[in-house]
Amino acid sequence: MDRLAARVRAFAEEREWQQFHTPKNLAMALAGEVGELLAEFQWLTSEQSTEIMSDPEAGARVRAKIGDVMIYLTRLADVLGIDLVEAAMTKLDEVATRYPIEQVKGSAAKR
Amino acid sequence: MDRLAARVRAFAEEREWQQFHTPKNLAMALAGEVGELLAEFQWLTSEQSTEIMSDPEAGARVRAKIGDVMIYLTRLADVLGIDLVEAAMTKLDEVATRYPIEQVKGSAAKR
Amino acid sequence: MDRLAARVRAFAEEREWQQFHTPKNLAMALAGEVGELLAEFQWLTSEQSTEIMSDPEAGARVRAKIGDVMIYLTRLADVLGIDLVEAAMTKLDEVATRYPIEQVKGSAAKR
Amino acid sequence: MDRLAARVRAFAEEREWQQFHTPKNLAMALAGEVGELLAEFQWLTSEQSTEIMSDPEAGARVRAKIGDVMIYLTRLADVLGIDLVEAAMTKLDEVATRYPIEQVKGSAAKR
Repeated sequence: MDRLAARVRAFAEEREWQQFHTPKNLAMALAGEVGELLAEFQWLTSEQSTEIMSDPEAGARVRAKIGDVMIYLTRLADVLGIDLVEAAMTKLDEVATRYPIEQVKGSAAKR
Repeated sequence: MDRLAARVRAFAEEREWQQFHTPKNLAMALAGEVGELLAEFQWLTSEQSTEIMSDPEAGARVRAKIGDVMIYLTRLADVLGIDLVEAAMTKLDEVATRYPIEQVKGSAAKR
Repeated sequence: MDRLAARVRAFAEEREWQQFHTPKNLAMALAGEVGELLAEFQWLTSEQSTEIMSDPEAGARVRAKIGDVMIYLTRLADVLGIDLVEAAMTKLDEVATRYPIEQVKGSAAKR
Repeated sequence: MDRLAARVRAFAEEREWQQFHTPKNLAMALAGEVGELLAEFQWLTSEQSTEIMSDPEAGARVRAKIGDVMIYLTRLADVLGIDLVEAAMTKLDEVATRYPIEQVKGSAAKR
């Protein structure tokens, strides 16, 4: 994870792209990549979507797009000084309190 | 990273949410969270966006939303059997070849 | 349609929000609203999503969010000098050529 | 507007795509197109984004993508039985009450 953040940062700095990599711009780029990921699933049924990785072409596209999303998310967190795993862990603690197991088990009124 | 993926998985399984966590649904949830993140930056200038973490309230919201995005991205990758860091590293190798340093340095015609 | 565009424009000008309503910012705001719309559908099956308007609460939320999306799309098109209906009609002509009826009928390899 | 909705509906029905055009799927498709639109603006400054239509190539891409967004939004509203212009007008009435002119004039704490 730290190695990835460092590589993404070096990648941007070598190309002198820091000027473009403001949080605002990176959030847009992240959203653009997520839009491409959505497009892979939009016409599939939920059941079909669970089998997507067994299709070599679609699977490769999904893997590449998830890679893109992760690159921009890592870069965005890095320029904001946020530790990605820590932010997720902290948030998970909060939602665990908000959605106690016994109250939400199997329920669709979930996240 | 592995610990995060395991925790997110346990979180979903304890609540019997696996039934909802198809790749299609998770991609939508990811996009929804990214939409909330965008909303934090939409009326800021690029310069203002670089200072957002020095505002305690906005900073806390951004951190929480980045945590949400990371949770859903981790869960999506997990149900697809994709290693998030590896997918990003592989993609970084590809884009490094596509955007050679000497050709794109400082240029806006980049990603 | 023209009346809507005029009202949205007046709404922004009365509040002196033109300064914030650059195409870049409006595209982000549009994406943020679409993210909220996605959230209404993310845990529903496709079948359930076809029944959403018969639930008064969810139906009202969907209607309000579609209204928000339309407001920002109208405003974005207006500041860019694009006629929304004409742009859609032109695009429809193009995709009709790209997806001839006899070739794509009933097929999932569509958009 | 009504003519557009009718044309989009005919377009889908001729191709027997109604089966794919559930609200859930259409919301995803809409978000995917908005993601492509974001990509046109992500590395531009706000100022540059206001000039985008004077670049023939970028301008044509933006027009085409706005057309795509409008097509899916029209189709989504149609399958849900929502009148797009009316939904926007109703929402505008609500936000006008929420953001009285004298209180928000020129302020960034806006929508």
